[in-house]
Amino acid sequence: MQEDQAASDGGGRRRRGRRRGGGDAGSEVRPVVEQRPFRQPKLPFPPTELLSADELESIHAASLEVLKEIGIDFIHDEAKAMLKAAGADVDPNSDRVRFDPAMVEDAIGKAPEAFTLHARNPEHSVRFGEGYLVYCAAASAPNASDLEGGRRPGNREDYRNFLKLGHMFNAVHMWGGYPVEPVDIHPSVRHLEALSDMLTMSDKAIHAYSLGRERICDGMELARIARQVDDETFSREPSVISIINSSSPLRLDTPMLEGMIQLGRRGQPVVLTPFTLAGAMAPVTLAGALVQQNAEALAGLVFAQVNQPGAPFVYGGFTSNVDMKSGAPAFGTPEAMRTSIIGGQLARRYRLPYRSSNVNAANTLDAQAAYESVFSLWGAVMGGVNMLKHGLGWMEGGLHTSFEKFVLDADLLQMVSEFLTPIGVTPDDLALDAMREVGPGGHFFGCAHTQSRYKTAFYNPMISDWRNFESWEEAGRPEAYGTANRIYRDMIAAYEPPAMDPAAREELDAFVRRRTEEGGAPTDF
Amino acid sequence: MQEDQAASDGGGRRRRGRRRGGGDAGSEVRPVVEQRPFRQPKLPFPPTELLSADELESIHAASLEVLKEIGIDFIHDEAKAMLKAAGADVDPNSDRVRFDPAMVEDAIGKAPEAFTLHARNPEHSVRFGEGYLVYCAAASAPNASDLEGGRRPGNREDYRNFLKLGHMFNAVHMWGGYPVEPVDIHPSVRHLEALSDMLTMSDKAIHAYSLGRERICDGMELARIARQVDDETFSREPSVISIINSSSPLRLDTPMLEGMIQLGRRGQPVVLTPFTLAGAMAPVTLAGALVQQNAEALAGLVFAQVNQPGAPFVYGGFTSNVDMKSGAPAFGTPEAMRTSIIGGQLARRYRLPYRSSNVNAANTLDAQAAYESVFSLWGAVMGGVNMLKHGLGWMEGGLHTSFEKFVLDADLLQMVSEFLTPIGVTPDDLALDAMREVGPGGHFFGCAHTQSRYKTAFYNPMISDWRNFESWEEAGRPEAYGTANRIYRDMIAAYEPPAMDPAAREELDAFVRRRTEEGGAPTDF
Repeated sequence: MQEDQAASDGGGRRRRGRRRGGGDAGSEVRPVVEQRPFRQPKLPFPPTELLSADELESIHAASLEVLKEIGIDFIHDEAKAMLKAAGADVDPNSDRVRFDPAMVEDAIGKAPEAFTLHARNPEHSVRFGEGYLVYCAAASAPNASDLEGGRRPGNREDYRNFLKLGHMFNAVHMWGGYPVEPVDIHPSVRHLEALSDMLTMSDKAIHAYSLGRERICDGMELARIARQVDDETFSREPSVISIINSSSPLRLDTPMLEGMIQLGRRGQPVVLTPFTLAGAMAPVTLAGALVQQNAEALAGLVFAQVNQPGAPFVYGGFTSNVDMKSGAPAFGTPEAMRTSIIGGQLARRYRLPYRSSNVNAANTLDAQAAYESVFSLWGAVMGGVNMLKHGLGWMEGGLHTSFEKFVLDADLLQMVSEFLTPIGVTPDDLALDAMREVGPGGHFFGCAHTQSRYKTAFYNPMISDWRNFESWEEAGRPEAYGTANRIYRDMIAAYEPPAMDPAAREELDAFVRRRTEEGGAPTDF
Repeated sequence: MQEDQAASDGGGRRRRGRRRGGGDAGSEVRPVVEQRPFRQPKLPFPPTELLSADELESIHAASLEVLKEIGIDFIHDEAKAMLKAAGADVDPNSDRVRFDPAMVEDAIGKAPEAFTLHARNPEHSVRFGEGYLVYCAAASAPNASDLEGGRRPGNREDYRNFLKLGHMFNAVHMWGGYPVEPVDIHPSVRHLEALSDMLTMSDKAIHAYSLGRERICDGMELARIARQVDDETFSREPSVISIINSSSPLRLDTPMLEGMIQLGRRGQPVVLTPFTLAGAMAPVTLAGALVQQNAEALAGLVFAQVNQPGAPFVYGGFTSNVDMKSGAPAFGTPEAMRTSIIGGQLARRYRLPYRSSNVNAANTLDAQAAYESVFSLWGAVMGGVNMLKHGLGWMEGGLHTSFEKFVLDADLLQMVSEFLTPIGVTPDDLALDAMREVGPGGHFFGCAHTQSRYKTAFYNPMISDWRNFESWEEAGRPEAYGTANRIYRDMIAAYEPPAMDPAAREELDAFVRRRTEEGGAPTDF
């Protein structure tokens, strides 16, 4: 995009960063957009409760009944052996494992209520639990999209461009996985290349995928090396997290269980998230889908605590519904808002940090993408979410990550953080002097109280266009999608990599080289 | 719009209504869209509280100090005389009225905590208070807008088309004023023509503007005639409501006070809404803006109760902020979300129904319009709003009402109602039998539990397009704006007026005729 195009597109309001390759290399780098600092917001009020204590207990009790009577398939022989040794009822002729309620209750309370996930830049370490929110970038989409290039299969260039955006936006607290899958890197070494990019192009906390033993072990080593800590410190200071999706209904598969085993042994946290779409992989009633979600999450909790007592564990909720006409998954629905809030109630009942998401099912960045997304945020935030997965960029039910949605979400999430900031009620905030000065019929803009505060009094949005209609028409009727596109282009152009200890970089590169020479990880998972 | 255009635009999913003037007059009229029934949702959980009890008291106490020390200008001699007689400190040389805290405290608790606003169709009467929500259509915009015609000054045809939409959408519980100002009707008779249209083309409850004595008295008579009730019944059964905007800061002007006097005398409710944009007509701090909002609202409450003890009164909150770079009003901001929630706390402290809004500042129906709108809804709903003004169609800070936004908002508000519907937790809802039947690794679509429920299990949106990317591309990449346009066109084409007692219609027409012959209302207000 040319500078003059941006200007003619109404971009005059925004300050521009230095252009990559421009002639003014000596001039100061100015921020592309005004941002709030990197800061985890904290919920300043009790989360909303949709179920009474009795109703919540009925979900819990039904989950225990599912675990005792129906059971869960654990597709992993070592896992079954561990559970059998710990007292579970393991069917010798199948993968089925059933749990006595006492065994489940025994696991509750063993995982920490809160923990810190360490980034290689300590200023970017994040706290899970205690009311704090962690915003994660979108993860795992097979496609990327932007206004000019449209939707295309994920590749390393798009992947790296998302890393640049995520590094620059303070609203990104951590990575929740690969923002887009770089499918042009061979699967045997993709985790090595992609995580090495993530750990060098950004200094925020990371997620590694639980796709078998080698990958997750490599991921942990890469995170440890990037932080330049020894094994003992690494085990004491969680530095990599992984989403464990149950293979709903009522199954945990081999790669996921392998990930849980390896992560737990080194003290790293997992997020057990059942993929319970009501009407498809879970009952069509929301209560039924929640019972199943909860049974799967509790089964994961029991296994995680059998594997490693005290291992950090996050309760994940992802229960939404499908479009019953087409079977398509739906997101940002009134059903998902309610399950998101009730999921939070369940997580708190078990004193676990809670994961939910910022999701939508739109194919383009129109009003639908925005309202489904904010409805998602409404359910997650009021439900007491701690880890907000897919916080930035998620579109189309997860089938593509959009560069423009990423920018728009940075704005939305900053607004959520601002909303969660308590207002001051000091005598100065109550402003009686200002009202005395202005009086009935006056105007506050010129008064001293306003003049000393107006620059920082309100959130200054990146996307919202508040010009009057005539000025907006003159500027070519810009829409949010185009504005976000301009910011994304400018941000990437202004990107500069974070500082990194050369020794860490060298060790990281050597590890990737060695593991690549060894053939990487098996691709038959 | 031609039928074939709609079809090529991806409209195949929607059932179509009978076309106006079509040749198939004998065929059955089918609904244009699937709607939820007319129903007021009720908040099923306690509203969110952002301020502690002590902090809330500091707002209350500061408001009392404003009323005692600075005072409010009442630009109405009769109103001042009434307040003086009731014990207020009225400045003999100006409009300034000051209130002793005891006088304010005395007014609190006199207005009813809840009341019913009666529509001419009793099934459309609405309850204010007791946790119920009332969704009102957008009001008072000087311009209308749609996709084909763009933005144009309000006129009677657009006005009537909004009436048709509002009558047909069950998400519209009542009228909050004229959805667009029909400026092609002469101001002396506009209220007669516009309210007569509203009362005949729809059968929902109405708002009349407080623009001097004649207009509001005509409005009450029209509402009484439409309901065919006598004066005594009309006074006992509120049938028209009016927004009273204070002329912030700290002023109540003549037409508004005249409206309060006349409405109160006939037992009709008012909604006192200060227009307190922080940084412009109110202090730049949110606490300061809330103190001023509260002082103005309490002054209105005192006057309303002096005028007519026990008169129904709604506490209105509309505190938002301005863009400090341009002075433009902003809506759907994190500032407005917080003031909306705290406004609800104040209303409940005074045991009054609470009014807030569904607003945004976007110039077009893009992502901005949607996210600002849902952020507004988030603040209003979680804040315990009872009367949701501008619920459908509001755009551009109130400068235009959009036909497409009206449809989109009908969808959003139905989703809010659905979100507020408690989920069932009966044994049947908990779905243990379904999980027993399906078991680990199965699929729920075919099971009996799903089959008997799938048609009504989930909210079926009007706008959201959940087709997969390929089908959506084939359909021409429809966006929310275009989908809403198609539905709005179809709805208007399918409109049929509600039944009306011919005697009522005749009396209404005769009243309009007589008042028109008398010259209508003065235009020098």
